[in-house]
Amino acid sequence: MTRDRATRRPEADKPLAVVLLSGGLDSCVSLALARREYQPAVLHLNYGQRTEARELQAFNAIAGHYGLDRRLVVDVSYLKQIGGSSLTDPSRPVEVGLPAPGSVPGTYVPFRNAHLLSLGVSWAEVLGAAALFIGAVEEDSSGYPDCTEEFFRRFEAAIAAGTRPETHLVVHTPLIHRSKADIVRCGSELAAPLHLTWSCYTENERACGVCESCRLRRRGFAAAGVPDPLPYA
Amino acid sequence: MTRDRATRRPEADKPLAVVLLSGGLDSCVSLALARREYQPAVLHLNYGQRTEARELQAFNAIAGHYGLDRRLVVDVSYLKQIGGSSLTDPSRPVEVGLPAPGSVPGTYVPFRNAHLLSLGVSWAEVLGAAALFIGAVEEDSSGYPDCTEEFFRRFEAAIAAGTRPETHLVVHTPLIHRSKADIVRCGSELAAPLHLTWSCYTENERACGVCESCRLRRRGFAAAGVPDPLPYA
Repeated sequence: MTRDRATRRPEADKPLAVVLLSGGLDSCVSLALARREYQPAVLHLNYGQRTEARELQAFNAIAGHYGLDRRLVVDVSYLKQIGGSSLTDPSRPVEVGLPAPGSVPGTYVPFRNAHLLSLGVSWAEVLGAAALFIGAVEEDSSGYPDCTEEFFRRFEAAIAAGTRPETHLVVHTPLIHRSKADIVRCGSELAAPLHLTWSCYTENERACGVCESCRLRRRGFAAAGVPDPLPYA
Repeated sequence: MTRDRATRRPEADKPLAVVLLSGGLDSCVSLALARREYQPAVLHLNYGQRTEARELQAFNAIAGHYGLDRRLVVDVSYLKQIGGSSLTDPSRPVEVGLPAPGSVPGTYVPFRNAHLLSLGVSWAEVLGAAALFIGAVEEDSSGYPDCTEEFFRRFEAAIAAGTRPETHLVVHTPLIHRSKADIVRCGSELAAPLHLTWSCYTENERACGVCESCRLRRRGFAAAGVPDPLPYA
């Protein structure tokens, strides 16, 4: 089932870790790194984004590749609601639900990663996990403050205070200072199922190859000297 | 509209604050305190709990009493999903949705307050608010670690790192070390609309008066020497 040659400890001896897995390249490599030392429980978030179904498919394919049964899919469409245009008219009661595709100004939801981490922490505490992995990359994040190592460090301190005394949860951000080429190289070395990941912003059988996300991905593979296993349109 | 005699500054001069408002006694008094120095934007969370409709009614009644137009209602039923029994079988894919009423073991969701704060912070950043109020009471919280002053302090540090440089968000927990009697007294002095709050765990026209939450409330009013304006069954 698994082709990861870097597994070091018998599965049953490994502690649990919650791994945020969007289905993209970064989270897949983060998972490949996590499973060297932990039994991963994978967490996926649906935003109601255009590529939601395709990303969920990638999530399940990657989890299936590694034989991971602990999976949790959470609907966080409220994040769009908060960042959405329904808030520009404050006198209007805000409905629960999704704004029309494209109506959200930009992709950034303020403090978004705090929501992802909080979900991960809650689930980790239910499962008794010892760690939480998030594949955040500071370089890619356009200066979002919730994508910095400093933020993750402070959030980890809040976790220590806000969870049960017996909970000792380490937040791992293994890719935080890596370049896309580094990440491709690392994933390739770990035999991560990069062919199952999805990065494209369009939802098609084949990735478009020209959207911002596809370009970033292709540049990373090219710089790493690794062939991108995804077929492009 | 307002009967609050403690208002100190003209409304237009006051900065915005996001106030978490469940519709219960504590959050109502927290709001009454917040509005002395801030223009409140009130945030309500639906959990899919049995009394959801009644609590939402209280939220809207209290916001209406103060003439507050900035209201946001967010569905956070995923919290039940995380804390719910669907996770006791980790091999089963977890559906998005609510477990049957009563199927959640206890009311505690680990790290719950981090979710509430994260929602408040995201909305506060969208609005450009200067503060966030949460009516948490350490004494009532059965030792939940996410209800301690230490947790809120550390979370505030994470907010400072994880939001825009121009965002300076103070987390106020004005009730954290108060007793229920203190809270009743404070609300009464501020002419907070305690008659519009809802504390009962059952959803009825009249509060039952005997559930745990009703008892805690009634003891608080009795100890404060203030008549409880709610009619009881």
